[in-house]
Amino acid sequence: MAKEITSRQEDYSKWYNDLVLKSGMADYSPVRGCMVIRPYGFGIWERMQGALDRMFKDTGHVNAYFPLLIPKSFLSKEAAHVEGFAKECAVVTHYRLKNDPDGKGVIVDPEAKLEEELIIRPTSETIIWNQYKNWIHSYRDLPLLINQWANVMRWEMRTRLFLRTAEFLWQEGHTAHATAQEAIEETERMLEVYAHFAETYMALPVIRGRKSPNERFAGAVETYCIEAMMQDGQALQAGTSHFLGQNFAKAFDVQFLNKEGKQEHVWATSWGVSTRLIGALIMAHSDDDGLVLPPKLAPLQVVIVPIHKGAEDLNKIYDKIKPLLDELKKRGISAKFDDDDQKRPGFKFAEYEMRGVPVRLAMGMRDYEGNTVEVARRDTKEKGTVSFDGIADHIDNLLNDIQQNMYNKALSFRESHIRKADTWEEFEKLIEEPGFISAHWDGTSETEEKIKELTKATIRCIPLNNPQEDGKCIFSGAPSKERVIFARAY
Amino acid sequence: MAKEITSRQEDYSKWYNDLVLKSGMADYSPVRGCMVIRPYGFGIWERMQGALDRMFKDTGHVNAYFPLLIPKSFLSKEAAHVEGFAKECAVVTHYRLKNDPDGKGVIVDPEAKLEEELIIRPTSETIIWNQYKNWIHSYRDLPLLINQWANVMRWEMRTRLFLRTAEFLWQEGHTAHATAQEAIEETERMLEVYAHFAETYMALPVIRGRKSPNERFAGAVETYCIEAMMQDGQALQAGTSHFLGQNFAKAFDVQFLNKEGKQEHVWATSWGVSTRLIGALIMAHSDDDGLVLPPKLAPLQVVIVPIHKGAEDLNKIYDKIKPLLDELKKRGISAKFDDDDQKRPGFKFAEYEMRGVPVRLAMGMRDYEGNTVEVARRDTKEKGTVSFDGIADHIDNLLNDIQQNMYNKALSFRESHIRKADTWEEFEKLIEEPGFISAHWDGTSETEEKIKELTKATIRCIPLNNPQEDGKCIFSGAPSKERVIFARAY
Repeated sequence: MAKEITSRQEDYSKWYNDLVLKSGMADYSPVRGCMVIRPYGFGIWERMQGALDRMFKDTGHVNAYFPLLIPKSFLSKEAAHVEGFAKECAVVTHYRLKNDPDGKGVIVDPEAKLEEELIIRPTSETIIWNQYKNWIHSYRDLPLLINQWANVMRWEMRTRLFLRTAEFLWQEGHTAHATAQEAIEETERMLEVYAHFAETYMALPVIRGRKSPNERFAGAVETYCIEAMMQDGQALQAGTSHFLGQNFAKAFDVQFLNKEGKQEHVWATSWGVSTRLIGALIMAHSDDDGLVLPPKLAPLQVVIVPIHKGAEDLNKIYDKIKPLLDELKKRGISAKFDDDDQKRPGFKFAEYEMRGVPVRLAMGMRDYEGNTVEVARRDTKEKGTVSFDGIADHIDNLLNDIQQNMYNKALSFRESHIRKADTWEEFEKLIEEPGFISAHWDGTSETEEKIKELTKATIRCIPLNNPQEDGKCIFSGAPSKERVIFARAY
Repeated sequence: MAKEITSRQEDYSKWYNDLVLKSGMADYSPVRGCMVIRPYGFGIWERMQGALDRMFKDTGHVNAYFPLLIPKSFLSKEAAHVEGFAKECAVVTHYRLKNDPDGKGVIVDPEAKLEEELIIRPTSETIIWNQYKNWIHSYRDLPLLINQWANVMRWEMRTRLFLRTAEFLWQEGHTAHATAQEAIEETERMLEVYAHFAETYMALPVIRGRKSPNERFAGAVETYCIEAMMQDGQALQAGTSHFLGQNFAKAFDVQFLNKEGKQEHVWATSWGVSTRLIGALIMAHSDDDGLVLPPKLAPLQVVIVPIHKGAEDLNKIYDKIKPLLDELKKRGISAKFDDDDQKRPGFKFAEYEMRGVPVRLAMGMRDYEGNTVEVARRDTKEKGTVSFDGIADHIDNLLNDIQQNMYNKALSFRESHIRKADTWEEFEKLIEEPGFISAHWDGTSETEEKIKELTKATIRCIPLNNPQEDGKCIFSGAPSKERVIFARAY
């Protein structure tokens, strides 16, 4: 077929880019580091949004919208936050253009300079906590459980479609609580929502854990994360949930009258996932023929291709298929009958494989007469001829099976690619192979940084419910009580 | 009650602001001209989005996402467009901050100056048509029917919550077609979608029309609009749909191979509605006690307030109400049982009135024992005691009735406030009274501008299917074939 994809073996990175571009998920834009999310990619994001938004609402959250632009001075209010975020961001300095006196288009009007520069939000803690000050006065105003779906911008130097772009879409939850305990529970609850989403919808097993201090969110007391393994064995952080303590409440002076009648600073969390999840979805499951999408997120779940000569045959097949289309629609399964006469069936097959449609049906005249249909599943590429009777049930079950199988496959890949290293030599050897390394660490930032410098591996997380065992740091030999997960990461 | 609202009579403009702020719809932000949409206001926007998005998809559109930032040079590519838009917009000139050497927070890093400034999108025609160039090659790629939900920014000098803010949320459809005829049909189709939405969901009658050349979108060949009348008789443009001809295709050189094998420029439309609709919704229906929301867009449709002494009575009432809550949920009606013991029933009544909840039920022990319930409707303030048997049906019908009644009331208000003026004296007198004026116009921009200068009234639209009649321009006396709608507008 025309749209050839580089194989994973040949060049994993090029394979990924080929897939994203050729399947019509996204495109480059003329603005450095910013991507266009095309309808097929956006269809996946809409399904992700729908599922997550329901889970957020089921856990008591409501949506709101805060300004895109943040006064520059806000960023410096929380000391750690400004260190982590303020540097690489888009700065608005003027608010007007004017005609170029030389007649060459428009220029920035020097008269229209802002008194204080505005920053395009890299994240919204500061602008939101500045607002919460007006909304929170007493314990009766708490908890405040707000989420925002928005675009944010971080001026990344090296960008990759979906995985790291200057502008990206995300959701950011920002909650306020009366006690530290409640805020920590919220942080953990939302981590679990993310993990459940990744596993159930994305068919992506994740390790739940805490970040080392080095990798914490700027301004957080504790950062929880879910980490997934891609097919090249590298890690991808798929979501984070932060316990912010009273840091932002203090920076913006948000206090409340507690039940005992005393003023106290509010406790906070924030948590987010982004369009980067689409990159994770692609990297975790797809193959050299194209995307492999889990049925729960696929914009199109079933495609039906007629194989016929002439209009009469086509009509016969369509009449037979029509009740199936209605039945699938009734079950909430998206299906398409592709009767485009300008493309040959083989071309269509390759196209739908490329786009990762989970189930493909094909019906020729022999099938028609024998009351059968050919069914092909995208994940395993198995195909076979089945009876047309009860075909809707068959498809329904098959979609569930594909969803589960994709998860199992990713899980077994991950399980076979987490290895223990007990000496530095082992570590250095293993880190050159695909996968995660489980190893002891002395708990210091110095060691973590040194290991990163030498091997490009970082501590992805300290797993939750981590078994405690005595050991020695892989690098320094200092005593350690538990293993942590090391990997190279996206 | 504590949260007093200025009456419409006293100060219409202050009434509106009071309502928006005190009902918890929105709040001011520290960024000039930018608002915070609070959860209650955002709940309405989510319902608007949901309904519109379904209609867009039912008419064949898909969603996508294009970059927030537009290279400055793009704006000058379409000559009329730059005149209309380029001037008042937020300009990004730098991409990095650094620590202030004086230790006072952060400053813009002068080293990080962009080669070409970027503009925060005021609308996306330019960035989208630049992309369409890569996607459209042949008639087989057409039509391209894409919509985007996004934030946009126009540096307005005078802002008002929801009605005119520097940043606002909207959707913008951008479609590409093989023929002018098809594009015009699309423009009209989407105008009708907007009109249907306004009338059916917002309970807001609108006049469908075309704009005069003066009021056309910058870069459009023809702008269609829907115009609504607010309670003070002023007009509010509630949605626009533009036939762009080949203007943007030519500016960005987007050509396609037509069926005859010839290269031709593509035909375009764009259409949008924004969070300004929330302002229209408030202004059209609300009263001096607070919001009046149409049931189809109300975040909460039914509230049930128990009137009791002590926990035992409360439990009895709750047990009686619980099956009703379940039944309403099953019917897709949002309902809340408000058993907050810290607030008195009278306070709650006022609060829900303020927030425009369409139906309020109250049950005391006498109701409980008599198997009745008090039902109050927000729109007419009528209340009465009805049997608890069949109460779910009663509520269901009442919600439909309220939706219809709100529309009828707004329609009859509008109909009684459109007056004909046949002399300039009449016009000058009528324009000082609330309402629209139907009058003859000579079709020239000069006359339109002069009338605006003298009276602040603009031509809101030339209604579709306008009756043709001979007349004389209200201002110049020149011959005219039809009346147009004049009004002062938001």
